[in-house]
Amino acid sequence: MARRLSIVIIGSGNVATHLARRLDCVHLVKQVYSRHLMNAEKLASSLSDCQGIDNAGKIIKDADLYLISVSDDSISQIAPLLKDVDGVVAHTSGSVGIEVLADAGKAQGVFYPLQTFSKHAFVDVSKVPFFIEGSSNEVSRILADVARGISDKVYFADSSQRSTLHIAAVYGCNFVNHLLDISSGILAKAGYELEVLRPLLEVTLEKAMSMPPSLAQTGPAVRRDINVIKKHLSRVSGYDREVYEVMTKSIMERRND
Amino acid sequence: MARRLSIVIIGSGNVATHLARRLDCVHLVKQVYSRHLMNAEKLASSLSDCQGIDNAGKIIKDADLYLISVSDDSISQIAPLLKDVDGVVAHTSGSVGIEVLADAGKAQGVFYPLQTFSKHAFVDVSKVPFFIEGSSNEVSRILADVARGISDKVYFADSSQRSTLHIAAVYGCNFVNHLLDISSGILAKAGYELEVLRPLLEVTLEKAMSMPPSLAQTGPAVRRDINVIKKHLSRVSGYDREVYEVMTKSIMERRND
Repeated sequence: MARRLSIVIIGSGNVATHLARRLDCVHLVKQVYSRHLMNAEKLASSLSDCQGIDNAGKIIKDADLYLISVSDDSISQIAPLLKDVDGVVAHTSGSVGIEVLADAGKAQGVFYPLQTFSKHAFVDVSKVPFFIEGSSNEVSRILADVARGISDKVYFADSSQRSTLHIAAVYGCNFVNHLLDISSGILAKAGYELEVLRPLLEVTLEKAMSMPPSLAQTGPAVRRDINVIKKHLSRVSGYDREVYEVMTKSIMERRND
Repeated sequence: MARRLSIVIIGSGNVATHLARRLDCVHLVKQVYSRHLMNAEKLASSLSDCQGIDNAGKIIKDADLYLISVSDDSISQIAPLLKDVDGVVAHTSGSVGIEVLADAGKAQGVFYPLQTFSKHAFVDVSKVPFFIEGSSNEVSRILADVARGISDKVYFADSSQRSTLHIAAVYGCNFVNHLLDISSGILAKAGYELEVLRPLLEVTLEKAMSMPPSLAQTGPAVRRDINVIKKHLSRVSGYDREVYEVMTKSIMERRND
């Protein structure tokens, strides 16, 4: 079994909470730091032996790992607080480069879980893909070991690859959710819940995973069924209509490749 | 147990195949008609006691149900072939009205499964939502009974509601698949498979089902994180870029409601 590391968590939001609880099963989360003492103490109290603090001066210097899990814009404000620590300092953001941590600790890294975390929804962390970057091979190895301790899916990604992953996730998660939002609004007008689309969505997802999604494409756009497309466009308006038009053009264009 | 009905299937494509096999477990599919005898015979041979035919003159007149499962444009060509039959004539299309069948049989209906069927992928028909319309209450009842025999989810929908469902499915299935196609292309450039997004996609889907998707929306657009949006736009081009722009505007607009 791998050595139990001592970990300090910076942040008390959704990602910090899910990671802290999971990491505490394998390692020892010794401190949670947050600007709001109540939040720090609340998360700390759910861990095995952990102190919640809101005073950066109290952060211990000798932890093995400092995990910064705060909003993207705040990472650069946290880094200087960890100037003098001994361990590895890593952030958990998909869209921020490793260089923001240049002055923090002895070694730097990124520990990015490709998942959306909510306060109350259970997430099986063992199935979350983690993308690791380190300022040296040694750091990459340490962070990958930590990730493997809590997840079955651990990959390496430099800052450019991570940015690509983040863009792909915007299309594949944020934009997909928005399509479901539009779909849900259209269904509501006819008296149906989004739930009626669940079997279709599940098959759509499975198909896209088991064959190139371009081959799995169905519907009026890929059939170039102009009559149906016109009929649909006459029944949607505003941005829903713009989305319909651009997606349809994009599907048709893709087929011209 | 409901009476075993005699059924004639018109068509031998994916929908016809999946429905015929499932219906044959509960009722008796007596004939499969296709313009191509080989296709008709192939499907018929997978059923318990069924004849494959390509000659419309051979279609029996006394079946209880004639199910037309052909391409949308072909339904109007099939209807006259069923002018003199006794039973209920129903089509399985989401985007074609019931009136196309006006001259077929004694009674008409629609039997629309909201699912995407492929030749080789298994589909659990019992979980597929069926949407029923009948030219009379009696026909609606008959078709609903048939649907309940093979699926747990049976709804009624007139032609306008069905058209709405179809539009919702274009956003929620066809367009979602296209986003996964774009996502898959972006990931490939960084050396990743779409599979890395699976846990994220599954959670996205579950969230959208358990709360209004507008509340589940995450990502740079809903955060109005212009820096990240600009960075992303600088890294995508062509229609991928147009899709990014329109979806982002649409998400921002929705939040202004």
